[in-house]
Amino acid sequence: MARNPERRTALLDAAIEVLGDEGARGLTFRAVDARAGVPTGTSSNYFTDRDQLLSQVADRIFVRMTPEPGSLATAFRPEPSRELVVELMRWLARRMAAERTCYLGLFELRLEATRRPELRTQLTKVLRADLDFNIRTHIESGMPGDADTVRLLYFALTGLLFDHFTVPGLHGDRDLDDLIETVVSRIVPEA
Amino acid sequence: MARNPERRTALLDAAIEVLGDEGARGLTFRAVDARAGVPTGTSSNYFTDRDQLLSQVADRIFVRMTPEPGSLATAFRPEPSRELVVELMRWLARRMAAERTCYLGLFELRLEATRRPELRTQLTKVLRADLDFNIRTHIESGMPGDADTVRLLYFALTGLLFDHFTVPGLHGDRDLDDLIETVVSRIVPEA
Repeated sequence: MARNPERRTALLDAAIEVLGDEGARGLTFRAVDARAGVPTGTSSNYFTDRDQLLSQVADRIFVRMTPEPGSLATAFRPEPSRELVVELMRWLARRMAAERTCYLGLFELRLEATRRPELRTQLTKVLRADLDFNIRTHIESGMPGDADTVRLLYFALTGLLFDHFTVPGLHGDRDLDDLIETVVSRIVPEA
Repeated sequence: MARNPERRTALLDAAIEVLGDEGARGLTFRAVDARAGVPTGTSSNYFTDRDQLLSQVADRIFVRMTPEPGSLATAFRPEPSRELVVELMRWLARRMAAERTCYLGLFELRLEATRRPELRTQLTKVLRADLDFNIRTHIESGMPGDADTVRLLYFALTGLLFDHFTVPGLHGDRDLDDLIETVVSRIVPEA
């Protein structure tokens, strides 16, 4: 296997673009090579098979979507409160919008996982690590609510953001910030 | 355009199976004909183009997922309460599980809608009709909560069911009935 890490990352980022344009079924070594502008056959030097490519794409999506530790520490600095959770969720949604192709690519991968057990195992692992991290951070920082508060926020934000990205007109004149405030203020108890 | 309604429905149901197996990008006239076991060229007599096929698939998914009016009336017969909302959401989830291919096909279509404005318009229309119907039914039947209660239930159930269908091990030993009860009891106020 080829080991140039920058090249591998560039191939994975190209794979995420292919996911966005063509869906999971269009994600082939050939399509990745073409999108990355490298000679046909390059991807097959970096990934043993399509399952390995898909798993590493999943990992790469989470790396790109996870905030820097420094920006997270800053975000959690104010006094814990329901209002701060609203601000954090709005900040998170803006991050997702900035990485829209990644966020939608994750949905493509999750649908593909219904057909590929190895990908399902990998996605379960990264999604659980992410959810556990969010639960731990919420509780350790003294935010109001418990583990199920965070789980419920995660469920609702998934539905809300998927609407926002795929059918943005569904909720009429309710914009994203308004919907996030509604969701958080009904799920998170007062401090 | 050919007009045999049973044949059209059979083609749309075959299209939903193709969506489940191949994703939206695999949904071609040729694939639908093959899946329906009809001569190649049949679908092109029923749908002017791929956009029309996709729109009619979206409509068909909602027809299959919508409960019969009779079963809905029965479901809403008991005294309105938070506990009844829990039971209704569990019943809804079992329906979605029974129509798993439809439910996941709707996600495939929503991702495809990010690339096809006509499909996005159609999906926005059917999803809004469905959400408006759910809000109206909830309020008219005297269930506790308001329009945003229903909107929030819809967001959270979307996230929860998408986990259940794509990464069923994500929430460990929390089964679907347990998670639904948690979601409803934290979103819906006591009667």
